[in-house]
Amino acid sequence: MKRVPKKRTTVVKAPRRTTRGGSKRSVFRQKGVSRGRRGKAQLKYIPWASVELEQLNPLLQRQFIVGHDIMVARVLLKKGCIVPEHSHVNEQVTYILEGALKFRIAGKEIVVRAGEVLTIPPNMPHEAEAMADTVDLDVFNPPRADWVNKEDSYLRAATRV
Amino acid sequence: MKRVPKKRTTVVKAPRRTTRGGSKRSVFRQKGVSRGRRGKAQLKYIPWASVELEQLNPLLQRQFIVGHDIMVARVLLKKGCIVPEHSHVNEQVTYILEGALKFRIAGKEIVVRAGEVLTIPPNMPHEAEAMADTVDLDVFNPPRADWVNKEDSYLRAATRV
Repeated sequence: MKRVPKKRTTVVKAPRRTTRGGSKRSVFRQKGVSRGRRGKAQLKYIPWASVELEQLNPLLQRQFIVGHDIMVARVLLKKGCIVPEHSHVNEQVTYILEGALKFRIAGKEIVVRAGEVLTIPPNMPHEAEAMADTVDLDVFNPPRADWVNKEDSYLRAATRV
Repeated sequence: MKRVPKKRTTVVKAPRRTTRGGSKRSVFRQKGVSRGRRGKAQLKYIPWASVELEQLNPLLQRQFIVGHDIMVARVLLKKGCIVPEHSHVNEQVTYILEGALKFRIAGKEIVVRAGEVLTIPPNMPHEAEAMADTVDLDVFNPPRADWVNKEDSYLRAATRV
């Protein structure tokens, strides 16, 4: 995907939006991040090409977009990349767009290939290994505060070719 | 994507899963759907090729996967397909994988093309028109009870070439 130099995220002011339903406690509030930093849900137009591509380690790149209670991430893994075992309060749905990831989860190995999905409940430890160069779309609810706050050292160190 | 005849969704029993955090009120409970139908979050391995492809109208097909508080849908729109104005309590994040959708939302027209994302707050009315044959990945929080319960007549009737 071609990178563009300027920020193209467009926040569109929403007239007369009604109050959102639900009473979900935000992980941002759980983690002590002020409500002010999250604000209200906003209408935003965001080309992926305008989103920072973080190089977490030589085999792992990541972009993410945060809505309000939804985070969508594009995770690019080179073959051999290991995401070491970790868990989080966030529900995760992983959709492999290209390549394949081998998960070690719930005492099993599950290979998730392009066109396949894995739903991972909150707090379930999992590890993943890229079986090929992989484009992984990860959806989280609520958004990963550790990623937003760059408290994700488990991703920045561990890698294996 | 090739369709396979048998159901390949695999629910993997999770040993010793800890209790999930959060206190979000589910739209399923709001809508009177029993908690029993939703159950606990589960580890599930689901190839898209095993998921029912609903033909909602001649120009519109849809598949979806429901986690617990996350729904991920693949919406396939033929050029000219109109999704008439509607709104829902669910936050929506739309990621266009192929093609382009022109949204009418918040008094504006926003064309979202392949590789671009639109975050749509809860309760914000929006309409969409396919500018080309389009593959649209929609993420919702919470899951769309109206889709699960097939109470989505607004999608099943309206279309324009």
